[in-house]
Amino acid sequence: MLSKSLRALRVVSLQQRSLTQTQAYLFGVLTPGKSRQEKDTFGPIEVPGDKYWGAQTQRSLQNFKIGGERERMPIPVVRAFGLLKKAAAQANMSYGLEEKVAKAIIQASDEVAQGKLDEHFPLVVWQTGSGTQSNMNANEVIANRAIEILGGDLGSKLVHPNDHVNRSQSSNDSFPTVMHVATVMEVNHRLIPHLKELTASLKAKSEEFKDIIKIGRTHTQDATPLTLGQEFGGYVAQLEHGLKRIEAALPGVLEIAQGGTAVGTGLNTYIGFAEKVAENLSKETGFDFVTAPNKFESLASKDALVYLHGALNTLAASLMKIANDIRFLGSGPRCGLGELSLPENEPGSSIMPGKVNPTQCEAMTMVCAQVFGNQVAVTVGGASGHFELNVFKPLIIRNILHSVALLGDACDSFNKNCVVGIVANKERINKLLNESLMLVTALNPYIGYDKAAAIAKKAHKEHSTLEEAALKLGYLTKEQFKEWVIPENMLGPEEFKK
Amino acid sequence: MLSKSLRALRVVSLQQRSLTQTQAYLFGVLTPGKSRQEKDTFGPIEVPGDKYWGAQTQRSLQNFKIGGERERMPIPVVRAFGLLKKAAAQANMSYGLEEKVAKAIIQASDEVAQGKLDEHFPLVVWQTGSGTQSNMNANEVIANRAIEILGGDLGSKLVHPNDHVNRSQSSNDSFPTVMHVATVMEVNHRLIPHLKELTASLKAKSEEFKDIIKIGRTHTQDATPLTLGQEFGGYVAQLEHGLKRIEAALPGVLEIAQGGTAVGTGLNTYIGFAEKVAENLSKETGFDFVTAPNKFESLASKDALVYLHGALNTLAASLMKIANDIRFLGSGPRCGLGELSLPENEPGSSIMPGKVNPTQCEAMTMVCAQVFGNQVAVTVGGASGHFELNVFKPLIIRNILHSVALLGDACDSFNKNCVVGIVANKERINKLLNESLMLVTALNPYIGYDKAAAIAKKAHKEHSTLEEAALKLGYLTKEQFKEWVIPENMLGPEEFKK
Amino acid sequence: MLSKSLRALRVVSLQQRSLTQTQAYLFGVLTPGKSRQEKDTFGPIEVPGDKYWGAQTQRSLQNFKIGGERERMPIPVVRAFGLLKKAAAQANMSYGLEEKVAKAIIQASDEVAQGKLDEHFPLVVWQTGSGTQSNMNANEVIANRAIEILGGDLGSKLVHPNDHVNRSQSSNDSFPTVMHVATVMEVNHRLIPHLKELTASLKAKSEEFKDIIKIGRTHTQDATPLTLGQEFGGYVAQLEHGLKRIEAALPGVLEIAQGGTAVGTGLNTYIGFAEKVAENLSKETGFDFVTAPNKFESLASKDALVYLHGALNTLAASLMKIANDIRFLGSGPRCGLGELSLPENEPGSSIMPGKVNPTQCEAMTMVCAQVFGNQVAVTVGGASGHFELNVFKPLIIRNILHSVALLGDACDSFNKNCVVGIVANKERINKLLNESLMLVTALNPYIGYDKAAAIAKKAHKEHSTLEEAALKLGYLTKEQFKEWVIPENMLGPEEFKK
Amino acid sequence: MLSKSLRALRVVSLQQRSLTQTQAYLFGVLTPGKSRQEKDTFGPIEVPGDKYWGAQTQRSLQNFKIGGERERMPIPVVRAFGLLKKAAAQANMSYGLEEKVAKAIIQASDEVAQGKLDEHFPLVVWQTGSGTQSNMNANEVIANRAIEILGGDLGSKLVHPNDHVNRSQSSNDSFPTVMHVATVMEVNHRLIPHLKELTASLKAKSEEFKDIIKIGRTHTQDATPLTLGQEFGGYVAQLEHGLKRIEAALPGVLEIAQGGTAVGTGLNTYIGFAEKVAENLSKETGFDFVTAPNKFESLASKDALVYLHGALNTLAASLMKIANDIRFLGSGPRCGLGELSLPENEPGSSIMPGKVNPTQCEAMTMVCAQVFGNQVAVTVGGASGHFELNVFKPLIIRNILHSVALLGDACDSFNKNCVVGIVANKERINKLLNESLMLVTALNPYIGYDKAAAIAKKAHKEHSTLEEAALKLGYLTKEQFKEWVIPENMLGPEEFKK
Repeated sequence: MLSKSLRALRVVSLQQRSLTQTQAYLFGVLTPGKSRQEKDTFGPIEVPGDKYWGAQTQRSLQNFKIGGERERMPIPVVRAFGLLKKAAAQANMSYGLEEKVAKAIIQASDEVAQGKLDEHFPLVVWQTGSGTQSNMNANEVIANRAIEILGGDLGSKLVHPNDHVNRSQSSNDSFPTVMHVATVMEVNHRLIPHLKELTASLKAKSEEFKDIIKIGRTHTQDATPLTLGQEFGGYVAQLEHGLKRIEAALPGVLEIAQGGTAVGTGLNTYIGFAEKVAENLSKETGFDFVTAPNKFESLASKDALVYLHGALNTLAASLMKIANDIRFLGSGPRCGLGELSLPENEPGSSIMPGKVNPTQCEAMTMVCAQVFGNQVAVTVGGASGHFELNVFKPLIIRNILHSVALLGDACDSFNKNCVVGIVANKERINKLLNESLMLVTALNPYIGYDKAAAIAKKAHKEHSTLEEAALKLGYLTKEQFKEWVIPENMLGPEEFKK
Repeated sequence: MLSKSLRALRVVSLQQRSLTQTQAYLFGVLTPGKSRQEKDTFGPIEVPGDKYWGAQTQRSLQNFKIGGERERMPIPVVRAFGLLKKAAAQANMSYGLEEKVAKAIIQASDEVAQGKLDEHFPLVVWQTGSGTQSNMNANEVIANRAIEILGGDLGSKLVHPNDHVNRSQSSNDSFPTVMHVATVMEVNHRLIPHLKELTASLKAKSEEFKDIIKIGRTHTQDATPLTLGQEFGGYVAQLEHGLKRIEAALPGVLEIAQGGTAVGTGLNTYIGFAEKVAENLSKETGFDFVTAPNKFESLASKDALVYLHGALNTLAASLMKIANDIRFLGSGPRCGLGELSLPENEPGSSIMPGKVNPTQCEAMTMVCAQVFGNQVAVTVGGASGHFELNVFKPLIIRNILHSVALLGDACDSFNKNCVVGIVANKERINKLLNESLMLVTALNPYIGYDKAAAIAKKAHKEHSTLEEAALKLGYLTKEQFKEWVIPENMLGPEEFKK
Repeated sequence: MLSKSLRALRVVSLQQRSLTQTQAYLFGVLTPGKSRQEKDTFGPIEVPGDKYWGAQTQRSLQNFKIGGERERMPIPVVRAFGLLKKAAAQANMSYGLEEKVAKAIIQASDEVAQGKLDEHFPLVVWQTGSGTQSNMNANEVIANRAIEILGGDLGSKLVHPNDHVNRSQSSNDSFPTVMHVATVMEVNHRLIPHLKELTASLKAKSEEFKDIIKIGRTHTQDATPLTLGQEFGGYVAQLEHGLKRIEAALPGVLEIAQGGTAVGTGLNTYIGFAEKVAENLSKETGFDFVTAPNKFESLASKDALVYLHGALNTLAASLMKIANDIRFLGSGPRCGLGELSLPENEPGSSIMPGKVNPTQCEAMTMVCAQVFGNQVAVTVGGASGHFELNVFKPLIIRNILHSVALLGDACDSFNKNCVVGIVANKERINKLLNESLMLVTALNPYIGYDKAAAIAKKAHKEHSTLEEAALKLGYLTKEQFKEWVIPENMLGPEEFKK
Repeated sequence: MLSKSLRALRVVSLQQRSLTQTQAYLFGVLTPGKSRQEKDTFGPIEVPGDKYWGAQTQRSLQNFKIGGERERMPIPVVRAFGLLKKAAAQANMSYGLEEKVAKAIIQASDEVAQGKLDEHFPLVVWQTGSGTQSNMNANEVIANRAIEILGGDLGSKLVHPNDHVNRSQSSNDSFPTVMHVATVMEVNHRLIPHLKELTASLKAKSEEFKDIIKIGRTHTQDATPLTLGQEFGGYVAQLEHGLKRIEAALPGVLEIAQGGTAVGTGLNTYIGFAEKVAENLSKETGFDFVTAPNKFESLASKDALVYLHGALNTLAASLMKIANDIRFLGSGPRCGLGELSLPENEPGSSIMPGKVNPTQCEAMTMVCAQVFGNQVAVTVGGASGHFELNVFKPLIIRNILHSVALLGDACDSFNKNCVVGIVANKERINKLLNESLMLVTALNPYIGYDKAAAIAKKAHKEHSTLEEAALKLGYLTKEQFKEWVIPENMLGPEEFKK
């Protein structure tokens, strides 16, 4: 029974994704405060009594004190282990695994997949480069939980981490499989929906702003006009392309290594196992996983993820451009460009009313810079495999998932807290447009380039408007100026008339 | 008439791609040693008498002394300008450009496209970020050469760089178009063919080595066996995927900006012009260029190239892995792994016969490291556009083409000077395989894990073979060992028997 | 009063650095399960009753849901805020801050510095790019805790976050100051000691191995010999240089921005305040902080940190080389180089005894790849400031501290779990040395290069030893070979004799 | 005798650094148009008759067709080989090298150092990773030129590339030495002077602008004022720090590998040779080269260059910030910030007078992005050494020298063509300053924060000036406003008065 204060504790910690310590109590089986002995081929070792993990997890915990809690294997990897171990147990039933054991494994794996056992995965990213220790962590936790389900003693190996949970598998094919599964899940659930929402909001703004004509800027300098809607339409096109690029990179990630076992040959597994696991995973997740046609490649390289990160990197480049534009278009309120007003979400300063810091743009551009960095880490990791195995896998998946999560969350935050609330300062936009000298271009057909240029130069020199300069020079009348200088007519190519 | 010594000069310089200085003489029109006056809106300026370029090129030359000759705009960009200006002139004939002028422009553009006028493009990459100066360089050279064709005076603007050659165009849509055209050409002509050849060679080796069973290595440590053919098959799969990734990134590069003019609106061009140019370019090159659906995006971002470079970056990661493997598998001859012999192409050392330095692997891995660096330059450039224009374009195209050329050439060199000549040292491979302790795995089904482990441990401790240890322990007979320990049976998954 | 189960909870969570939720209860003042109203210039807002933070922290929490708990502002930044706010309060006493208030602030700041209030800092890195929200988080927490100390009501502003805690400060100078303080602390406490220990261990190994002569390898190919001690001596030299480089980069980090306030002018602070804060920080930490000579630079750039990361990046390059060497020298046991035995820390495989995976090398090289990535993030962030403020600061400090922590921890782990236990396999080393063909070099002075080469070539071709080949060819006697071919004489330059 | 047309050719090609083909004729010895046979241990091979290079150079030329002419080993490396081979020959005279031979080598080396033989160095960067082929290129060219000086036949080995020119040296110590020498020369001659000039110009502008008070901008938003001189002073401080950082990284580059020979032991060289070479190089160049204390490190790593590039990378980050600021402060002329006018160096557009594209800023920021990319290439190369040798050396030196040259030239170009001509638009600056709402801060002491805020809010809402709003609200008189709101008093900390 959960104490009152513990329940309170859970309430107040909604900020945090999981209050992992308390969950253990819910099961009522583990014994907090006491340790338990577990064994592996190195001999016995004490593990915390309230944790399902076994000897190999414990050794890794002690041997890799690098970075601490925040550097733990990302949660989506843990969940993907749940999905994989379930799919493997289902397949193993066709290959001789006892049904009672398989079902217990499946139930335990489901709990892992659902996030109920997150706190039993304490290992950091900076461990063995094959992810073996995290695979054993999954095997050990699922084995012990399955033992518990079956009423056995933890550590008894009644359900064996290797022989049962890891049956027909090796870390060398399981970990890359889990990398791909976690990536597919996160890209589809965390990134793509938010990217689509952001794109939709920008598209709506593009519509909303379709009749607002504004000065164009090239080289940051005044140029010919366009509509604010056209400008936002460029952002929409970037993100629509960005989505397609990510989608184009996903098929390679849907190919999974499972079935390659130790070196890619599939030694110690059965013909058909690889395909069955892919099929089960597809059913469970709704994504079309297939067994990789070449398992040697799947173990020795992580190219499909390097490529995917290239797509994430490109999206980050797009988002940095967009966020930068919005930041500058919203700069001011008096001494910047001032064409947009961004939502005020928090006090900018207690002194300066009207000061809105474009904080969502700032968060977004920082995220993009991080993704640029992660790209290098993923690349170096991906390039550094040797022979039958790439041993930079935890690094790679950490950075992939980091980029996916940051981009997804940042798209969401940028969308909800900034883009949807953007307001065009029509008056200011119009003022700048009309002050601009480049509207003179419209006079070329009527008075010729030379006179048009003379008007513009005079206006520039005398800090006057084009109209004033034109009238002073006597090249045209006030009425003609009104008739000929029409920004609305400068927004697209014209019909050719012979 | 070409002097004798000049002719000699041309003969001896075959090493170099072009002896640009001498070509000018072949035309017999330009006046070496004398300067000529050209004009632009800034006034008159002296240019070299034997060059076709005009005032704006000359100004850039004087204002951007950064990096020198080796930092000139890449030649494929120059050639692509030839292709584009021809396509534009063809289109312009439908929109009122005088046929005589158009034809002269087309002829001059053809010469640029064919590389006959390379030496008239002296500008460096590190100029204006829009590439305007290189666009004007093309306009000026083509205009003057067209004037020459028409019998006029250079600099007379009889054919006008802006009004005729650049008609219906802006640097802001022309330069990105040229970036895409140059990229498509180089990827298809310089990279893909060599990549395919290298892949084919590795595939042939994979076939050749399909029956050579060898020790596998994971974590660089001895593991279960595979065939050398399987190992090379992994490389083949990496490169086949790599090709597909590049191909998947090309459609975005086939979308061209032409028609967007100054800010993406298409002001000052005609409806239909954009499509006609794309059509003409497609006919000329054989690649399916299409007009970009959103020109604002095309001018303000270079995302399609950032994404393509992500594919090049992934290929580089694959190639680095492959070249590293081959380097290590060929290490020795006595004190390394020694499984492969690489072709001896040059003396390794005057002292140590048999020392083959894996120099092609070294060139390849250096190229890959460069591509990883170029990825960052392209990304930062791509992310740094503002408003209606990205002004990191010369940087971006320089790095794209650098990576394409280096990867293409390195694939070719690595293939011809290394891969095709790789020989498997069967004796050594077999010796290592049989010395390995992991073959003990095959005994598990017969004598059980514990006894098998005891054999392996004894062999490890006593530096003996598995067979010796097994016999000493009396767990099986010589005949049984022969019958049971068969690496051939460890190369794939087995049939499941209920 | 802490419930039994909560106490248990604390015991079992020793794995984790802080059980932040429970600590709140220890103070006995905050009210869990209930919310409290706080105010800022945007109006009132509900905050968790058991947290000290105020309105601005709460807004940030709601507006920046990016990355979740693991992406919180690094703890060393939180602690550095404690140090800074104390130093500022001490200085403010000389500038009119009431002593009672100052002392409460100092006490609260001390608690922050000592890590007692970590859980009250929930904000993520991906917030405003100035770090304003984290500065306000510190101001709010310290203000409320100080109020509590003084017996007031939380949220009452009896001690005001801005007027008292942030007095004479701005986020724009405070956050960069805290970045520098946190960096100096972490580099000195977490990185340098472990780097020194690792260096010392490698130096001890270099001594231990000083008489073990081994084959040298260049281009991964057999070369002339050196001692294993010399080889390890190279690693020592790399790390000793690495330490010096980091130390050379620290003086810039000891310059702090405090005193620049909003834009670098120091508006709203007093002459002398900047120097006093630097002095107080120096006293408190033992490091020689000084006020930055140019505050405009300090706010608008983070160059000193970009440079420091260049030094970290160099250290990572060194460590990657060293870990790679050790991984390969320890490869085997039968089919690799096998010159070193690395400690067995965890089961490699249940099948293959003797298989030691070089897992510490793997963790180290993954860490190095991450640092290479972080370098790009820091650089892009550092380059992207505008006008009076760089707004990529949380990104920059996150990556700096990430690299420092990972490198420090990895040095420690690599040292303790790998380097100290490295054993040289003398027999194997000697065997390889004597099999090597390059010892033939020693014969040059006696029988000339040509005959020596003939011997080597024959040995290579016939897979024999040099001695066998030499004797077969009849160029020298067994005795002469023994006398002349002495690896010990090939380990250094010789004395010149005229 | 040089033909007329050839002379003309030389005149017109001043654009290009060297007209290498023609120089050969000046010597009058080589035979253009005919080939010559050269030999190495692989046998005979034809080389161009008008080139000094020998067999090994020719083989590399044929085996490494990667990148073409523009990818040749950077010229400063060629020149540094001249310096090194001279220094080595001088030292070798003390160790038994015949004086006549030594003097011929010294003369030939001098010619290499002076750039007279650049065209005889055709090899590309993408060769063997040790740079052996470039070292042999230097040995062969110097040997043949020395033979020529002594009146012998080219290819006769009268002066032997290995035995004489390379005496007591190995590629493995020579190439890293040359890397360091070339870097020291280029940093000191090409980068530092231009960096200093740019800094001086910015300092002069900072002085010139010291009384121009302007709006500050943080988060790109209006903030409290500072002087334009203070703003430029921040740039000066960045560059002054940047110079110091580069200088702090140079001592490691002054340590040279010469004397380590093949693997770092110094086998086949003499005690004292290493020191003598360093001494001779110092005399010749005026820089304090010293022999590296640990040669194993010098051959196996290039850490000193990785660190130096970290300093270059930091400088690039500074320059990108500065160039971006100047670009934006100069944006307009009507619709941007418009505080600065940048020099007009070339026509921006034939239509829009007053449009100045900040092209020098664009070139500079592109250069910076390239340096960020080069940083990754250098890092990956530096991290990828194995055992006794790093074989990414040509890659590393290429990127180092690329960054040095680009930064040096860009500083020069940016300085001369932009910074020296920057003009402050005082009127515009003043207008923005006075329109700004944040001057209200100055009223706090007189009327309190609340009333001041009310004024600012009213002004923001009604688009009026602060003064108008203040008078409307009746909080103060016109005279009081004039007396109290004085930007001049907001530029620094104030004196504390008790």
